[in-house]
Formats: sequence, structure tokens, C-alpha cells
Amino acid sequence: MPDIPVHSDFAIRHSTLPRTLEWIGGLDGHVRMIDQTKLPAELLMLDCHDTDSVWHAIKRLSVRGAPAIGIAAAMGAVLGVRDHDGTDRDSFLAKLADLCAYLATSRPTAVNLFWALDRMQRCARSAETADVPTLKRTLLDEAKMIRDEDAAMCRVIGRHGQSLIASGCGVLTHCNAGSLATAEFGTALAPIYVAHEQGRSFRVYVDETRPLLQGSRLTAWELQQAGIDVTVLCDNMAGALMRAGKVDLVITGADRIAANGDAANKIGTYAVAVLARHHGIPFYMAAPSSTFDFDTPDGSGIPIEERDPDEIRRGWGHLTAPQDVNCYCPAFDVTPATLIRGIITERGIVEPVNRDRISGVLERY
Amino acid sequence: MPDIPVHSDFAIRHSTLPRTLEWIGGLDGHVRMIDQTKLPAELLMLDCHDTDSVWHAIKRLSVRGAPAIGIAAAMGAVLGVRDHDGTDRDSFLAKLADLCAYLATSRPTAVNLFWALDRMQRCARSAETADVPTLKRTLLDEAKMIRDEDAAMCRVIGRHGQSLIASGCGVLTHCNAGSLATAEFGTALAPIYVAHEQGRSFRVYVDETRPLLQGSRLTAWELQQAGIDVTVLCDNMAGALMRAGKVDLVITGADRIAANGDAANKIGTYAVAVLARHHGIPFYMAAPSSTFDFDTPDGSGIPIEERDPDEIRRGWGHLTAPQDVNCYCPAFDVTPATLIRGIITERGIVEPVNRDRISGVLERY
Repeated sequence: MPDIPVHSDFAIRHSTLPRTLEWIGGLDGHVRMIDQTKLPAELLMLDCHDTDSVWHAIKRLSVRGAPAIGIAAAMGAVLGVRDHDGTDRDSFLAKLADLCAYLATSRPTAVNLFWALDRMQRCARSAETADVPTLKRTLLDEAKMIRDEDAAMCRVIGRHGQSLIASGCGVLTHCNAGSLATAEFGTALAPIYVAHEQGRSFRVYVDETRPLLQGSRLTAWELQQAGIDVTVLCDNMAGALMRAGKVDLVITGADRIAANGDAANKIGTYAVAVLARHHGIPFYMAAPSSTFDFDTPDGSGIPIEERDPDEIRRGWGHLTAPQDVNCYCPAFDVTPATLIRGIITERGIVEPVNRDRISGVLERY
Repeated sequence: MPDIPVHSDFAIRHSTLPRTLEWIGGLDGHVRMIDQTKLPAELLMLDCHDTDSVWHAIKRLSVRGAPAIGIAAAMGAVLGVRDHDGTDRDSFLAKLADLCAYLATSRPTAVNLFWALDRMQRCARSAETADVPTLKRTLLDEAKMIRDEDAAMCRVIGRHGQSLIASGCGVLTHCNAGSLATAEFGTALAPIYVAHEQGRSFRVYVDETRPLLQGSRLTAWELQQAGIDVTVLCDNMAGALMRAGKVDLVITGADRIAANGDAANKIGTYAVAVLARHHGIPFYMAAPSSTFDFDTPDGSGIPIEERDPDEIRRGWGHLTAPQDVNCYCPAFDVTPATLIRGIITERGIVEPVNRDRISGVLERY
């Protein structure tokens, strides 16, 4: 992990909001996160004291967003090893491997989950002379560092992307790739927060993002908290909005980016990219470099999570479709690199999106 | 109105379902309709005994769909005049005009509403020698005829469109342009019902159609009742479904078609048409000829109804967005003629969609 420059003149303030997730206390502490399933009606904190609670929190989307899932999983692994009895290093590493394998089953698409769990295991293995008590403290430090680096990377993503947002423009985003999807600041929303802090005035349009409404529940909420002009629309209204000339720029997050730049993100992102292309509107994604998966040559190799059909059929406890009707319910789709104008990373903007340019930008540091 | 051929060998059966709406009894009777706001959880009938009840039923979408709204309004006008005191023909016609003007305020976009109300007034005016009691009976007959003609037209739309649906294909539709949107059979769904009756096996994909879910609540329900293979998806999944090669054909309804073929339909239709074009999938609309509005040269002249933002923010009684957040909530959008492969009418298929071809097909009879 390269050294991330954090500029002292750059301070996005979310002081009124609790952190999306963080480790509370020392090694005997726990993970505290915003329970995102309750927003926007209630701002409730969820405390997780063991690995299983974290697994379920990821699974049911109490914490979601590719970077935040990675942080949660890293902290979840610490919760599982910190009470490990015994001083044998190999059995400790085996237990860590088991916990990481378990946490990796929580969600299949976002690569940051696997990246963070790999990093935790590499960290433990590379501390060759450490005894078990030291390993526990080292892993907690590593998990906290993953969180802090994510916050720093998001700040830099915002700095790289902010120039795309001119005063008076309309920006469309899909799902939530904001503070709630990361440690702080967000990926897609980071350029928006920076442009806002710099005093530019613009409007953000947010697709509600069915079935679980991360756009209307989460993105609209956090932008509103930050005092940004936000308008919610149903996903099927984005085309009409573009045709009406209201959208100058689209920015979304990404959950996994293949080596050629094909990118998986929340279901519906691909359709937004096609609509943007039809209307000549630039379509950007924003993601930390850990979102790139160089072992996957192109988008066809990215596994796509299928969710429970009742997320479509029983929204909000009511029957919104015949109770046993077939549903098509992928959680993600893949946008081909050819539809993506650029990918905003903490190392710069990959534009145009192709293998050479990806290597060039990501290996800059 | 031309004579509509009704073929005796053509009988789509919906015998297990009540009619979408009909007149019960004689001149002292009432309008009975399925309350579509309760589907699919409950199949409840709503009886309207006066004009105001019909206005509210249209406004709150207990009855919806361009052809069904026209029928409801015609019957609503009868409910308003049938108790009219006095024998003065002019004051009777003035009262009818007032009622029609009131009913016309219920919803602004679908042209069938205005077409049906105009037809009722023309009917009354043209019965020059009729006394008031005769006029009342004449108007009831006319309203029933509008309903019966709609059923017959939908059958013929199905007959014209069925050849588009090959065995093994996937058909995508948006919103509800089925039995529930018409007297019977539907417009977009009529070709599907006919192809099914002819023994072809195929799959229908239904966009749930936010915010009011006419696709998942109504279309999925009525197709399931008819034994047709149906799969529901969120609106934002249609792009991924097309990219996966599952969609061979799109058919939607239309609420108003301008003279050049630009067509207003449920919000989201335009985005589906753009996605279909991107994937090389033929996009058809189906509508009776009364949907054409030759007084409106192109789509820019079609008024678009804006709905209550709480339809987005408070789906199903829960807060699904910040309670005071701005919303963009058009009920319809306009698909330009250039994106429409063909329009299936009771007089044949308008294909390609342009002024000359529209005139040619609609004036065939």
C-alpha cells in the first residue's frame, strides 16, 4: 500500500454524523457501525462483538459498499482471533484463515472484501517473529489502518475528481458510494463533497436504486446532512431526466473492476451508462485502487450475487408482487469499459479506460 | 368509429376474473371496477354511484390505463346526468358539458380520457330529436359501447401483434397495458394472450414500474392468472437482462401518440426504448387508434402529469427517502418515434412509425 498524501488544507467535515464504522476501545473492544437498514427513518448504531455478528451485518446490508465491507471484514477477523486461547503461532494463523474464509462467504461480488481479508492474513504471516499476543495487536492495528487509509484515499479521490463538477451543473449518481459506503467521504460522492466545500453550487440527482433503495435512503440522506442540493428520482426516470437536459455528468462507485476496465457496480449502473452514452453525457466511476482485480481479465469473469426475490416481492413488508412470482434479482451488473469515460482513483483519473492506462495510473506511485 | 371485426374463432378466456370495469344494471345502476390499488394482495371491487367517486377513482389510480380511464370517464358522465331533473335539452347538454369538463381534470396525459368525453358529448348533441329521458338512455348505451368496442379492439390488436411473439422468445413489458388497463385483453398484453392461446411457449419479463408498481402488482398478477410464464424485475435491471440476451422483443402500451408518432407512456418507457435500441431489440407499442392525437404535432406538445413526491418518498407507508427531500416525479415520458419499431393498432401495425404510415394504417377502414 503506497503512502497516501493527506493534504492539511483539505478537510471535509461531517462532524455531525457518527462514523460509518469504527473500532471502539482496545483489543477487548468491538466494532460499531451505523445500521444502514434503518436509514433514513432512524439513525441507529449497531455494536458487533464477534465475527458472526459482522458476517450477518454484511449479509443483511447493515454495512454495505465495497470499501466499507472490506473494513468491516478486517475488523470482524480481529473479533474472531482476539480471544483465541493458546500460544501456538501456526494454530493461530489457521484460525485466522478459517475466519477469513468464513467472512469471505458473506458477499461474492465486491473485491475489496477479499482484498482486505488477504491483507490481514499477509500481515499476520509476515510478522514472522511475533508471538500470539503481539499478532493480535498487530492485526487490530492493521484493521484500523485499512480504515484510516480508506478515509485518506477517499479524500484524494475527491481531490482528483472535483474538477469535473462545474458550478450550475447537474450530477447523477446511482446507489450509495458515499460516506456510508466507505470509512468517510465516499468514492463517487467525494468529488461532490469537495466541490461543495469549494463553494460551487450544483444539483445532485440520485436514483433511488431498487430494490433496497440505497440511493433514496442513504445517498439522499447523507447529501442532505451535508447541505447539498439533492433530488431523488426512481431509477426508471433517469432517461427522461437526461433527455430533459438536466444531467451533465454521471458518477457512480464500483465494486470490482476487471483488468480491462469492465466494472461491476450496483444493479442498474449499466443501464445508466447506456443512457448516458445515448445522450452524450460523460459517465465516470470512482473507486480506490483496491477495487481493481487484475486476476479477472474482463467483466465476464466477475461473479454476480443473486439476492432473495422477496427483496423485490415484499418491499417494506407489503406484498408488491404476486407472492410466488419468479423474479430476476441480480445485485450487480457489469458496465463495459467502452461505456466508461474515466475511473477516478486515489492515484489519478484513468481516462480513457483501457489496460495500458489502468497500469499507467495505478503504478504511478 | 369503424366496424370492428370480431372473429368467432378468437376467444381469450379470463373467465375466472371479474371485469376491470363495467356498468351494473340499468340506468339506475352503477359502475363496478376492480380497485387496482389493492392488488395483488386483495381482489376488491369498488362500486361508484356518482361522478365524483369516478373522478377520485381515476385520480388515485383505482382504475388506470389509458383505455380504461376513457371508459370510466364515459360511465362517470352517465352517473352525473341520469338523475338530472327537468326536460330542457339545452340545460341537460350544459350539465353534461360541465361534468365532462370536471372529469377531464382527473388526469392530463392520456388522450383517451378526452376522446371518450368528447364522444359522449357528440353523441348527445347529434341525437337532435331526443328528449331528456331518451338522451340519458342513449348516453348509457354509448358508454357501454365504448367499453365493448374497446374489448373488441383489444382482441384485434392481439391478432395483429401475435405474430411478433415466436416460441421460445423473451418479451419485456413495462407498466400495465393488459386487461386491467382496458375493458379486457389489454393492448401490449393482447398479442401475448393470443400467442399463449395459440400454444406458443415464451417468457414475459415485467418491469415492476416504480413508483406505483403497476408492472409487479398488476401485469405479473394478470399474466399469472392466465397461466403465462412471468418474471418480475426492478426497472433498473432491464439493461442487464437485455445484455444477458434474454429479451427478443419489447411491447408497451401508449397513453397518447402525437401526429408524428412520438408517444407518451408510463415513466421509464423512454429508457427501455433507448436500451432496446442499444441492444438491437425491436421496441413496439400497442394502442387503439383513439390514442392518436392528431392535434399534437409531436411529443413536445404532450402535457406530462407530475405526481405527489410522497409516491416516491413514502412507498407503502414507510419512509423510503428523507421526508422532505426534493423529488422528480413525472408520471409519463415521451418516446420519440425514431426509437419505436412499430405501433400495433386495431387497424394494423404502423411500421415504420412516421406521419405517412400512420395515416395510411389508421385510414384503412
